[in-house]
This record gives sequence, C-alpha cells and structure tokens, in this order.
Amino acid sequence: MKTASIIIIGNEILSGRTKDTNSNYLAKILVERGILLQEVRVIPDNHNIIKSVVKGESSLKDYVFTSGGIGPTHDDITAESIASCFDVPLLVRDDAVELLAMNYKNGKKDLNAARLRMARIPEGAKLIKNKISGAPGFIIKNVFVMAGVPQIFEAMVQEISLDLEPIEPILSKTIKIFKRESEISERLWQYADRYKDISIGSYPFNNSGVFGVEIVLSHTDKTLLNKVFNEILLDFSEPNTN
Amino acid sequence: MKTASIIIIGNEILSGRTKDTNSNYLAKILVERGILLQEVRVIPDNHNIIKSVVKGESSLKDYVFTSGGIGPTHDDITAESIASCFDVPLLVRDDAVELLAMNYKNGKKDLNAARLRMARIPEGAKLIKNKISGAPGFIIKNVFVMAGVPQIFEAMVQEISLDLEPIEPILSKTIKIFKRESEISERLWQYADRYKDISIGSYPFNNSGVFGVEIVLSHTDKTLLNKVFNEILLDFSEPNTN
Repeated sequence: MKTASIIIIGNEILSGRTKDTNSNYLAKILVERGILLQEVRVIPDNHNIIKSVVKGESSLKDYVFTSGGIGPTHDDITAESIASCFDVPLLVRDDAVELLAMNYKNGKKDLNAARLRMARIPEGAKLIKNKISGAPGFIIKNVFVMAGVPQIFEAMVQEISLDLEPIEPILSKTIKIFKRESEISERLWQYADRYKDISIGSYPFNNSGVFGVEIVLSHTDKTLLNKVFNEILLDFSEPNTN
Repeated sequence: MKTASIIIIGNEILSGRTKDTNSNYLAKILVERGILLQEVRVIPDNHNIIKSVVKGESSLKDYVFTSGGIGPTHDDITAESIASCFDVPLLVRDDAVELLAMNYKNGKKDLNAARLRMARIPEGAKLIKNKISGAPGFIIKNVFVMAGVPQIFEAMVQEISLDLEPIEPILSKTIKIFKRESEISERLWQYADRYKDISIGSYPFNNSGVFGVEIVLSHTDKTLLNKVFNEILLDFSEPNTN
C-alpha cells in the first residue's frame, strides 16, 4: 500500500486563528484512492523547518502533500524552502506566468513583483492548475505543493487526484452498538487479535445521554471485510451468553 | 518564550472519519498563556510511532500535549506507549481507580478488566481530573496526556491550565485592508523586514466578491505592538503616493 503524509504550513494554524480543514478534506480522498495517510504535521512559516520536514517526509513516504505559503507576501516561503530542500533553483517560469496572467484584467501588465513571486517554480517541477485564482501549485519529485486557502486547495486536489495511481480503495464498514465502550471492549479485543490485518476502531458516542460505540472495520479486501463484519454483528446482536 | 507541541493520536483522524478540533482549542489557550506552539502532529495508534514521536518532542519542547488513545479498548495504547517511552512501569493506581469508580452506579464493583485499563498510570505521573467521565489523564515529565473526545479533552485542558506557568500572553492586533494581497505585499514586506521581532501575518479574504487582506501583528510587548500597528494603519489608510 502506498503511504502519504500531509504537511500544513502556516503560523495562522498554530496560533489557533485559522482552523485547518485541508487535511481532513484530503484525508478522505486518500482513503478512496487506497493511499495510507501516516501523518499530518502542522508547521510554521519557517524556512529551515519547512526544508527539513519536507525532506524527511519525502524520503519516508510515497506521497507528500503540502498546503499553504505559496501566496505573494513576505511570509509565503514554501516555494523557496522546497526548492532548497531539493537543491534546485527557483525561477519565474513562462507557463506559470501565463496561468497567473489569465487571472487579471490587463493580463501580464497587471503582474507586479509581488504577483510574479507566485510564478516562481522550482526547476523540474510540474504545475498544478488553479481554477480559482490562477496562481499554480506544483509537483516536485513526490511532493505536491498546494495553496492554503481551502477553496483553492480543494480545487488543486481535484486536479492532482488524476495523477495519483488508481489503486484499491480502503473500504470500511461500521457497526453501531448501544452499549458502553468498556462493556464491549474485551470481546472486541479478541477480534482485533484474531484479524490483525483488519483495522478495527472503536469510537464511543453520547447522543443526548444515549451511550454507544461505533465499531469501524477497514480493509481493501471486500470479502474479508464482509466476513468479519458479519461475524462481529452476529456476536454483538445476540444476547451475550459468556 | 516557552515552546510546545501537540500530538493528536488516532487512526480516525488520519482516515478523515473524525475532524480534529482539539488542537485548535488548545492552540488558542496556549497563545493566551504566552506559550509558542511550534508543531501539531497527527499520528496513528501505533506503539512505536507514539513512543518515538513523544520521546522526540519531549526532548525538544518545554511542553508536549497529547490527545487520544486512553480509553478502554484494544486500540487505546497511548498510556503504555508513553510509559515505555520514559522506561517506567504502567500500573493500576488506587487514586486513579477511585476517580474512575465515581463514574459508575455501583462504584468499584462495576470496574471490569476493560475499565480498569483506564486506571493504569505510568509510575511517577500526576493525574489530570476528568469531570466528564471519570477516567483520568496524566502528566509525566513535560508530557500532558489527555483524552481524545473533545468534551473530555477540553475539560482536561481547563484542569491543567493552572499548572502552566503564567507568563506574558502573546497579544495580537488585526488591520483589515480592502485591497488584493499582491497590491500591498511589497510595502508589507518592508515592515516585516524592519520589525523582525514582530510576527506579521497576511491573510487574504474574499467575502462574496469583496477582496481584502487581514494583517495580523503579534508580540508579547503591547507598546511595541501598538507602535507598529499605528504605523502600518496610517501608511495603508492614506493614499499611496509611492
């Protein structure tokens, strides 16, 4: 199974000012594509931190997705940090300028120095189109660099999802049991032990005083998933005779 | 300034099934307490990963806060992973049993093996009370281990916030400018260059077609903050004669 990590870049997330919704959006799509998201990291707008975290994750995972820091201002340093992480120059590129210019009334005439910053792309990278505001993201090696603004991030994810190899999606099935988690956990543990391949999650809920647990089974193999699902369902729906 | 990281533990976050709200809740409180949140990491329910990430963060930051994995089921492995991270035994502790028992109708008689798991505390740790459902969190060295369920996490954060040394809060002031980010970024950059101590963030917004930027200035020194705030406000509110 292919592995991935998401790196959310931005002081505004770490200060609590902005809620990150991008990682959840992408996490759901990775599940559908059968890619195992192993970590999400939220890091500040800091050159050395971006460089070392992206470098580390890129060497450990099949895919790395970043969000944030590719706008026109002084705190947008993701592109240069990632260029230096792969030791390539960051240059204003014609195809990026074209995409950017399409977003302004007077085209290229409206591209001041700040806007042109958004056309700087690490050498060798492939562009990611931005249907919303023009300024492109890019893909370098296994790193997908996208905008932080959720609407733009989501549009870019739609663009790249075609580039991710189609593989078996991770399927999941949920069983809802109206008992306290601590009443069912011993029996559930036995299933987790018996079917080590299957991911079995146990999530307690409390809906206005009605307590229960959602048991979530996940695997790419539908037949195996259905077998274990039916077994657990039967076990927990019958009176417990243990 | 004291530094911190938050570690969110749980496959349900990485699969996109559950949105993490705990890191945003705590991030805001850390800002009020003047503690610099340097990273948020979302990691899976995996013994070795929890152990190595907590160990690493604990040695690098003043405070580490974890969320998730201290319930009664097989996938709740945070307590044992953190005990092994500090090389101490994990034992059922009387004071934790007392807190736990208070949550059940028949007190200790209701404590089956699964529930007793929630009274296992690494040796030497201090308990964090849980007003919501009894099962305590704990503090070991500089690591604060709390529940994943938001209501319980938030209650635990209220408990521990008294344990965090009261220091200067990070103050912030916001200036709203109704121009595109790329039109103001060059001038803003000069301020960021001149006042390197102050964190200057630039956050574009688009409210139904009205474009603008929120400039957020942050620092613990109120006088310095006000000085720079007034300077930028005056600059951007006057006609640009450059």
